[in-house]
Amino acid sequence: MRISARNQIKGTILEVTKGATTSHVRVDIGGQVVTSSITNEAVDELGLKAGGQAIVVIKASDVMIAVD
Amino acid sequence: MRISARNQIKGTILEVTKGATTSHVRVDIGGQVVTSSITNEAVDELGLKAGGQAIVVIKASDVMIAVD
Amino acid sequence: MRISARNQIKGTILEVTKGATTSHVRVDIGGQVVTSSITNEAVDELGLKAGGQAIVVIKASDVMIAVD
Amino acid sequence: MRISARNQIKGTILEVTKGATTSHVRVDIGGQVVTSSITNEAVDELGLKAGGQAIVVIKASDVMIAVD
Amino acid sequence: MRISARNQIKGTILEVTKGATTSHVRVDIGGQVVTSSITNEAVDELGLKAGGQAIVVIKASDVMIAVD
Amino acid sequence: MRISARNQIKGTILEVTKGATTSHVRVDIGGQVVTSSITNEAVDELGLKAGGQAIVVIKASDVMIAVD
Repeated sequence: MRISARNQIKGTILEVTKGATTSHVRVDIGGQVVTSSITNEAVDELGLKAGGQAIVVIKASDVMIAVD
Repeated sequence: MRISARNQIKGTILEVTKGATTSHVRVDIGGQVVTSSITNEAVDELGLKAGGQAIVVIKASDVMIAVD
Repeated sequence: MRISARNQIKGTILEVTKGATTSHVRVDIGGQVVTSSITNEAVDELGLKAGGQAIVVIKASDVMIAVD
Repeated sequence: MRISARNQIKGTILEVTKGATTSHVRVDIGGQVVTSSITNEAVDELGLKAGGQAIVVIKASDVMIAVD
Repeated sequence: MRISARNQIKGTILEVTKGATTSHVRVDIGGQVVTSSITNEAVDELGLKAGGQAIVVIKASDVMIAVD
Repeated sequence: MRISARNQIKGTILEVTKGATTSHVRVDIGGQVVTSSITNEAVDELGLKAGGQAIVVIKASDVMIAVD
């Protein structure tokens, strides 16, 4: 499957923290860490766990820019 | 200003493409490139242009995870 | 690629309308029509055009519920 | 109330799963199922429960397109 | 129609700026101004124009918090 | 830090409700109340609590418009 989302960055899962319905997944994308908030179902279905390879996917319209 | 968004990644602006109301800004975050879709107003107000330093900001609930 | 987004619905593209930087893509998902707003780049890269098969992908946290 | 969101699809609620602060609501929209992640408060206020009629509402800028 | 979105704030439209596919609508919500980016179609369908009454609708998961 | 998000509204925190991984923060922005759903981590890191000053930040592409 190829998807329209402009941002697809490969990395390694550092940590999966499950809540009641929502999990937080932290992914190392080469020195920088990205945090994702997804459903517990998705974590189970994709078999996400620390040490696994993953692709961080973000739609361009969800990315903001800041300057110091 | 400090913000709740979990993802704040420093980088260098590669390109700013302006449309009628919406601009696309591409930022190099250390070998990987992130594309952002923001208003033309924001581009002007922040003075964004190629070569400038920028911080990519993404709310955790907007980040998806994929596996091959 | 398998993705965490809970909503992945197959359909047929009805129409692609390109703007200056942003395109609107309308997809028939079996009688109902879904409208998507994505970058022109994504349209070109995926070769989206009327009559083509497509999968509509939506993160669960972006779905609201209404009642009459 | 009429809203700008381009996607408003009628369906029947299949399941409501409450978490600590966030609920997941699954809606059958005619053979296809859409999952929504909303606050527990919204579930209570709208009286959402399995078997009820509901409208799935999604902003066009939150819809991605994928191809096989 | 009642919707799950936690934020529904009444105001008066100050300005509608149309782009090629995307419009920007500025709404005064009592001294503060909110900017919305929606499709041109939605602007036409709802008949949005300066001086009109409108309700700004935002899903709670799209709201960030910052501190100085 | 200055950010591209078009909507940055000052207010006072009314309530912070923590869930398993996700918190709800309610902010009074001058008579109107905005609800935000963010990670528990963000609440802790920013030291958010009732009575504190805060800025509500919303990207324009996440704002919808409704009419009665």
